[in-house]
Amino acid sequence: MTAVEYQGPGLPPLQPMDRSARIDRLRAALGRWGENGGVEAIVVHKPANIRWLTGFTGSNGLLLVTDEAVVAVTDGRYQDQIAAELAEAGVEATVEITITEIGRVLADHLGSRRRLGVESHHVTWRQHDDLAEWLPNAELVPLDKPLEGLRRDKDDGERSRLARAAAIADAALARVLPRLGSRPTERQMARALENAMFDLGADALSFDTIVAAGPNSALPHARPTDRVIEPEDLVVIDFGAAIDGYGSDMTRTFVAGGEPTPEQQRLWDAVREAQAAGVAAVADGAAERSIDAACRSVLVGHGLGDAFTHSTGHAIGLEIHEDPILSARAVGILRAGYVVTVEPGVYVPGVGGVRIEDSVIVGNGGCQPITHSPKQLAPLPA
Amino acid sequence: MTAVEYQGPGLPPLQPMDRSARIDRLRAALGRWGENGGVEAIVVHKPANIRWLTGFTGSNGLLLVTDEAVVAVTDGRYQDQIAAELAEAGVEATVEITITEIGRVLADHLGSRRRLGVESHHVTWRQHDDLAEWLPNAELVPLDKPLEGLRRDKDDGERSRLARAAAIADAALARVLPRLGSRPTERQMARALENAMFDLGADALSFDTIVAAGPNSALPHARPTDRVIEPEDLVVIDFGAAIDGYGSDMTRTFVAGGEPTPEQQRLWDAVREAQAAGVAAVADGAAERSIDAACRSVLVGHGLGDAFTHSTGHAIGLEIHEDPILSARAVGILRAGYVVTVEPGVYVPGVGGVRIEDSVIVGNGGCQPITHSPKQLAPLPA
Repeated sequence: MTAVEYQGPGLPPLQPMDRSARIDRLRAALGRWGENGGVEAIVVHKPANIRWLTGFTGSNGLLLVTDEAVVAVTDGRYQDQIAAELAEAGVEATVEITITEIGRVLADHLGSRRRLGVESHHVTWRQHDDLAEWLPNAELVPLDKPLEGLRRDKDDGERSRLARAAAIADAALARVLPRLGSRPTERQMARALENAMFDLGADALSFDTIVAAGPNSALPHARPTDRVIEPEDLVVIDFGAAIDGYGSDMTRTFVAGGEPTPEQQRLWDAVREAQAAGVAAVADGAAERSIDAACRSVLVGHGLGDAFTHSTGHAIGLEIHEDPILSARAVGILRAGYVVTVEPGVYVPGVGGVRIEDSVIVGNGGCQPITHSPKQLAPLPA
Repeated sequence: MTAVEYQGPGLPPLQPMDRSARIDRLRAALGRWGENGGVEAIVVHKPANIRWLTGFTGSNGLLLVTDEAVVAVTDGRYQDQIAAELAEAGVEATVEITITEIGRVLADHLGSRRRLGVESHHVTWRQHDDLAEWLPNAELVPLDKPLEGLRRDKDDGERSRLARAAAIADAALARVLPRLGSRPTERQMARALENAMFDLGADALSFDTIVAAGPNSALPHARPTDRVIEPEDLVVIDFGAAIDGYGSDMTRTFVAGGEPTPEQQRLWDAVREAQAAGVAAVADGAAERSIDAACRSVLVGHGLGDAFTHSTGHAIGLEIHEDPILSARAVGILRAGYVVTVEPGVYVPGVGGVRIEDSVIVGNGGCQPITHSPKQLAPLPA
């Protein structure tokens, strides 16, 4: 197994997360959001955004942030949990436990403020109408992913958690890869990888592990099945670990055993070249769409443009698909501190699929990968 | 280990799922939804509702259903998957692969129909505004959980999948429970249970497994930690398997080893009595709130009313928390064919928590449990 033995660094240390700085950034942004001179407060419904601001991880709740107060509303199931999580995060917030009095609570804390920002990409039509009924004196201002905008720029605490999660995933893959040649099912391989990540210190999975072999590898979002992985299969493995909610993301593609066919090798080499071109294009100031263009032009050059059916990457963090999305239609600019994936792939019915993905921290003049597993099509001795 | 050995039935057989009957039920309902004489079509955004109607399991897509057509819209990642899943489900639908032309596709298929139902509890404020812009001639009619209403009444195919998932969970618990006394961590116990479910044929987990020991058991929605389970701990285990997306749900509470304390026994006996009273109240025609009242009055009688901080149950299916929710505020009536949980619990800081939960199929004059694991506080020889 020496061909694939992974000699990674020790687990990266975790840096503290400064949540009061995040609340300060939010308050500073309120004045520039919305079309007419900003908003005076914001109500946050999306769980990942609430977690980012306060550390609270419950599935139900909302947060009102004004210039004076941070008010967290949730139900009785989370009474103890929210107190513990806010304390651990060092967040000073007023906690209100209610299901029936949410409107009154919001009105009390909103006071005479009128312009209230609302997450228009997350709040439902019905929640909007509830807010309008509860707060007849407020003007509801639609904000498109306001917190997600702030969350693009990861702080030291976040980057350190993503890096540790990625290191755990690297080590887990090295541990289980030797099993690939012993005809496991896709599902057995996925579970082995997941168990290894937990053994190595993962808090959670960052998403459902993909192990897709043979014809299944031609499906970009396949789920593991009970199909036995045969030695001649292309196998796409796309997975990640999470630490404190921050999830890593990496893909490698292998032949399960023996020698690759010329066509397998051709596809893999093309994707490898495209992925390297994409990573080389990532830097502070680069147009997001230029990363997609860098990958896509390589694959077009190999006659594989039509086989690359998805976008090139996305940011990672508390959610597995965060902004920016690195597609041909992206309009933004990458900035130092973002953490994004670069993951071109080709999918050819009858042959299979190849995808190679790294997660990288955007820096000045380039980027720093946090996923380090070796890239080789045939990881096992033939 | 004879004290807990589980001698369950063989796995229940799966019945076919008749999706064309579901689409017929939806079309028949369109005329009675909305305030002014029904709607002429519906656009479905919620993934679980799309899956229920068509079998498509992608994370992105929408469905337009008119009297004439079923139109499924998704993006290029799912091109092959959606074709395969619709074919397997026996659903005849027009598939449109697009990201940029969704509005045109909807307008084309909507034709001259004006009143279009929209899932107001799921569609975001922004999606609503997009629909309004794309379809200027349509009247968007807010519908509150329309498909969820139809989904309450499970058909044979659905009940058989829930029953098989529950049987797998029963068998998995029996397999791993002997480990409880050997001081595993909460996380190790959870992973062992999950691995056993996969080994026994689960497709997926129905939700993140809860194994909460000692002080953690007093948190109703705790997540497994690296805390070692000590022999004297109360341990709440709440978990489920899924088959074809249909997830089971069961909770048992144990002392990890040795003899329970009198206070542990008192809490457990009270919850056991409350849970039995709740199950006994479930029948076609029963008010949903009466199930909550049956459990709550027992716990109030034991002086534990304030320690029961959540509602009594919920339906299960493609989602783990489906309607109806069996709370004190519920206003509906249970009907034969619904599948619901009954899960009172008490949470006492300093002592711990106890929750006991079964999933049952509502029938005429009673109900049929699908979870069968023995209920005993001390499962292991002292």
